[in-house]
Amino acid sequence: MDYQRFLEQAMAAALPALGRGKVADYIPALAAADAGAFGMALATTDGEVHGVGDDTTPFSVQSVSKLFTLALALHHGSDALWRRVGREPSGNPFNSLIQLETEQGIPRNPFINAGALVVTDALQTLTGDASGAVRELLRAESGNPAVATAPAIAASEAAHGHRNAALAHFLAHFGNLRNPVDTVLEHYYAHCALEASCRDLALAGGFLARHGLRADGSRLLSRTDAKRLNAVMLTCGTYDAAGEFAYRVGLPGKSGVGGAILAILPGRGALCAWSPGLDPAGNSVGAMAALDAFTTATGLSVF
Amino acid sequence: MDYQRFLEQAMAAALPALGRGKVADYIPALAAADAGAFGMALATTDGEVHGVGDDTTPFSVQSVSKLFTLALALHHGSDALWRRVGREPSGNPFNSLIQLETEQGIPRNPFINAGALVVTDALQTLTGDASGAVRELLRAESGNPAVATAPAIAASEAAHGHRNAALAHFLAHFGNLRNPVDTVLEHYYAHCALEASCRDLALAGGFLARHGLRADGSRLLSRTDAKRLNAVMLTCGTYDAAGEFAYRVGLPGKSGVGGAILAILPGRGALCAWSPGLDPAGNSVGAMAALDAFTTATGLSVF
Amino acid sequence: MDYQRFLEQAMAAALPALGRGKVADYIPALAAADAGAFGMALATTDGEVHGVGDDTTPFSVQSVSKLFTLALALHHGSDALWRRVGREPSGNPFNSLIQLETEQGIPRNPFINAGALVVTDALQTLTGDASGAVRELLRAESGNPAVATAPAIAASEAAHGHRNAALAHFLAHFGNLRNPVDTVLEHYYAHCALEASCRDLALAGGFLARHGLRADGSRLLSRTDAKRLNAVMLTCGTYDAAGEFAYRVGLPGKSGVGGAILAILPGRGALCAWSPGLDPAGNSVGAMAALDAFTTATGLSVF
Amino acid sequence: MDYQRFLEQAMAAALPALGRGKVADYIPALAAADAGAFGMALATTDGEVHGVGDDTTPFSVQSVSKLFTLALALHHGSDALWRRVGREPSGNPFNSLIQLETEQGIPRNPFINAGALVVTDALQTLTGDASGAVRELLRAESGNPAVATAPAIAASEAAHGHRNAALAHFLAHFGNLRNPVDTVLEHYYAHCALEASCRDLALAGGFLARHGLRADGSRLLSRTDAKRLNAVMLTCGTYDAAGEFAYRVGLPGKSGVGGAILAILPGRGALCAWSPGLDPAGNSVGAMAALDAFTTATGLSVF
Repeated sequence: MDYQRFLEQAMAAALPALGRGKVADYIPALAAADAGAFGMALATTDGEVHGVGDDTTPFSVQSVSKLFTLALALHHGSDALWRRVGREPSGNPFNSLIQLETEQGIPRNPFINAGALVVTDALQTLTGDASGAVRELLRAESGNPAVATAPAIAASEAAHGHRNAALAHFLAHFGNLRNPVDTVLEHYYAHCALEASCRDLALAGGFLARHGLRADGSRLLSRTDAKRLNAVMLTCGTYDAAGEFAYRVGLPGKSGVGGAILAILPGRGALCAWSPGLDPAGNSVGAMAALDAFTTATGLSVF
Repeated sequence: MDYQRFLEQAMAAALPALGRGKVADYIPALAAADAGAFGMALATTDGEVHGVGDDTTPFSVQSVSKLFTLALALHHGSDALWRRVGREPSGNPFNSLIQLETEQGIPRNPFINAGALVVTDALQTLTGDASGAVRELLRAESGNPAVATAPAIAASEAAHGHRNAALAHFLAHFGNLRNPVDTVLEHYYAHCALEASCRDLALAGGFLARHGLRADGSRLLSRTDAKRLNAVMLTCGTYDAAGEFAYRVGLPGKSGVGGAILAILPGRGALCAWSPGLDPAGNSVGAMAALDAFTTATGLSVF
Repeated sequence: MDYQRFLEQAMAAALPALGRGKVADYIPALAAADAGAFGMALATTDGEVHGVGDDTTPFSVQSVSKLFTLALALHHGSDALWRRVGREPSGNPFNSLIQLETEQGIPRNPFINAGALVVTDALQTLTGDASGAVRELLRAESGNPAVATAPAIAASEAAHGHRNAALAHFLAHFGNLRNPVDTVLEHYYAHCALEASCRDLALAGGFLARHGLRADGSRLLSRTDAKRLNAVMLTCGTYDAAGEFAYRVGLPGKSGVGGAILAILPGRGALCAWSPGLDPAGNSVGAMAALDAFTTATGLSVF
Repeated sequence: MDYQRFLEQAMAAALPALGRGKVADYIPALAAADAGAFGMALATTDGEVHGVGDDTTPFSVQSVSKLFTLALALHHGSDALWRRVGREPSGNPFNSLIQLETEQGIPRNPFINAGALVVTDALQTLTGDASGAVRELLRAESGNPAVATAPAIAASEAAHGHRNAALAHFLAHFGNLRNPVDTVLEHYYAHCALEASCRDLALAGGFLARHGLRADGSRLLSRTDAKRLNAVMLTCGTYDAAGEFAYRVGLPGKSGVGGAILAILPGRGALCAWSPGLDPAGNSVGAMAALDAFTTATGLSVF
């Protein structure tokens, strides 16, 4: 399959949509992003890497990091994590406290903020350096040692992070954090503020296309856990628009408010599209349009 | 692949679980079902049909009918339906009125009861006989002219249907029904009370494995709509356990409180498992166990 | 105290506010009301009756009837009613289904629509003619045999009553109605569609100012139940604005979307103000303003 | 009226109920309270003080302090406070975050924890020492210079205060705190941990019985604001049991998890009952029973 051509078509289809998005502005450091930027990369299980547009420009990965945090927590830990966080779609916006209260401190899934805080806490207990573990995984898989936390972004998130602080204290109230609230928040902000490019993320997501194997052939996740992670991505990976994403794109995907969406073609590769303009649900308008165009043209969806 | 052997293994794996389920007892006619019954059938896109256990025993299809109602509404109608019903997971039990109120009468998806009532209403407007249209589709695809509504079940549903009546009146209050409340409820109960076997449903679901084509080669749905229906099944098809189902089974699936789950292997076939004992979310314990065992052993999931 | 003068002052204070209200328009028969109309009457426990404006003009009493339905259900029945309906403020708009679902079919209080349906059902069981019982009470206490249900209003409520039908079916689903849904709705619409004037309602509410005694000296409610009914009026009588009403007016009160508010001066009298224009919470703008002015000027609040 | 005799009767009626309560145990310092303790005091507007039982034993005032915080915020500030906090019953347990989220950071009323945090923040801005201002008011009105914060209780609240910290961060997220989260929490814990006796609180609450005048005749609140505070107490003063309290006791009242309830007899006096055992809603079983008995026997309710 001529992937390069399909990526170019996808970019062409996405460009007219870029103006409809709105750059995340809840912290000044993110608000400075260029709404017109667009990049896309595909890393296949055969070892090919294709890219278009700003595919090597680093950006703030934000919630896409939650995918790697979860994979590492499952790698180092075990099914015990699933007693502290659920696997169901939330049916509510991504940072809602409501379900947390009605469900007694057990977040609906690992990708809403509350769930990601619990996963970060678990990874911190398992490794002693949750955000460092995520950073090292991204560096190793992408082969790019420049992947790093942007301190200004992390500091800005912390300074404007009353909602996440509320979530963390609420989890602590229900006994669902093991580390101090401040430690968990620090590592959470640090892994969300990692900067990487489409190419980096497509390479780093390869283990999900290879049924759990890392680039060097070692196993990060069991075949079953890799399948499960894809399932959680498909049902919960794009905030309150998981149904829409499954419907339009038909692939497991994880989005971030930095504008990236990382999608998995099981057995074939990992695909990352990025553009900073977001739709009201918090997903990148350009990335959605590009992924939609790509899967429609190639017929490569899981359905 | 030796499907027959995998079906036998799946049945063997499911049998010990049957005792853990609880037969639906909200209407007397369903409460009489045999909790120890189990059947499973696979109809491949190559035209093979395999079955084990009570694979030709008819049972009440219940909410599995919602899948066919939706397919027919999309066939006869168009995207207009999606202005009256959403495509997102509900994050709430299957018959909840809460989201309906907070979201002004637009049900979250076509598979919760409120959404299925809207789809039934739309199909009634399009065909003049919603439940008849579903029945004829099942008969034609399964080749079994005995597929029919069980009048006692339909009557029993109506007699105990205050919750569905509440939902229908609530939809009418928001202007989201075109036909009289009583007409919509009558056709809703009639298609839920259709009786068919695992073999019948596996054959009838084939169009979703064939990217929209019916058994006779005619097109029921566009390739895109077939993909979309699979996506909605995966994210919303098993009540409040869609995440769990995607995680364990990894296939698009639609369940019913009669004990059936119809799952799709895109490009390969349709698989129906049935056993009347339900878990607390309303999904068949035996069918879940069998589908889990089948996909684990064959490696046939979409992820 | 020169009540007549205070009523005139209250009317003068209310008149400028009339334009800010919006006549209830969910049924055509109510939408025809004159937004500029205003009346007010006070019936004292000494037997005096004072009135200003359109104090003898009949209007649709709507939810004010719920007060009399409740008093009669307590008179004929007993504390058993309080196992079927609560006494707490709802914290939600007056016709919400949400709390009904989360609280398993026990309405929060007797004045939200769901609660009033349960009380109507109880009174129907106790008397065989719930709406007739309310009508006769109003006629006897007011001395006005012309008090009667407006058939056009009742019919219009029924024709546009999908929301109340949803509530009634939902209560039936939870086993909290004893009579058929249609019977309960019929009597509910009939007592809401009673027509009476400010003077009629002030006289009819006298038993709450006389600690339970009717105009003829016979006992409708025990002293304790009369006190309790006043308490429920104060905390729940004005939909989602009970706090605002208590804060501004400082009296037990019950409002209706016909524009009336009946307020009780314990030991002194009953006061009814009416003007059809409503605020967003469903309470009459003019009646609120008049009652506020009256209690501020006279110092007659319970606090 | 022989108040002393009525107090003795009320105590006699309450004693059998004490065993049904459960001492607050969310912090160790409160869990040590004696469930069998009981005290009650009445301070009349005529200057009499009556007491029974442990009426001079100091205890943790907890949420009763919210009443004085609110009075001082209204004294020093103005109606501006009501743009930051509502006056409606919450219809939800006292520490719920749910309504805070759906209502965008404006707490339902000043007596739920979220509302009290906002009032504390406002008082801190107005005085620079919110908890000190409350302490000085209690000392001055009670004439007891020993009224003071128990440091161990305040520290224990802070150590177990993840839920309040969550609320405060959530309010800060919505821009509804002016001071740093830690400052607001410190003063909140300090005024909740004030220790005073039934006699102290009955004397301190006198301004609400005297229509806003302090013991020395100076004005703390306007007549209108005093009336309003009583109204807010009646509709919101006893957590999710305001309807029950109004129904049984029929007086404005404010309760705390230390076991006290302060009730106002407008124009006559202030009444404080205390016993540490709580009902599931967080109100003292013994204090409720005593106040119920007192108002029933004396006929002194506002209704």
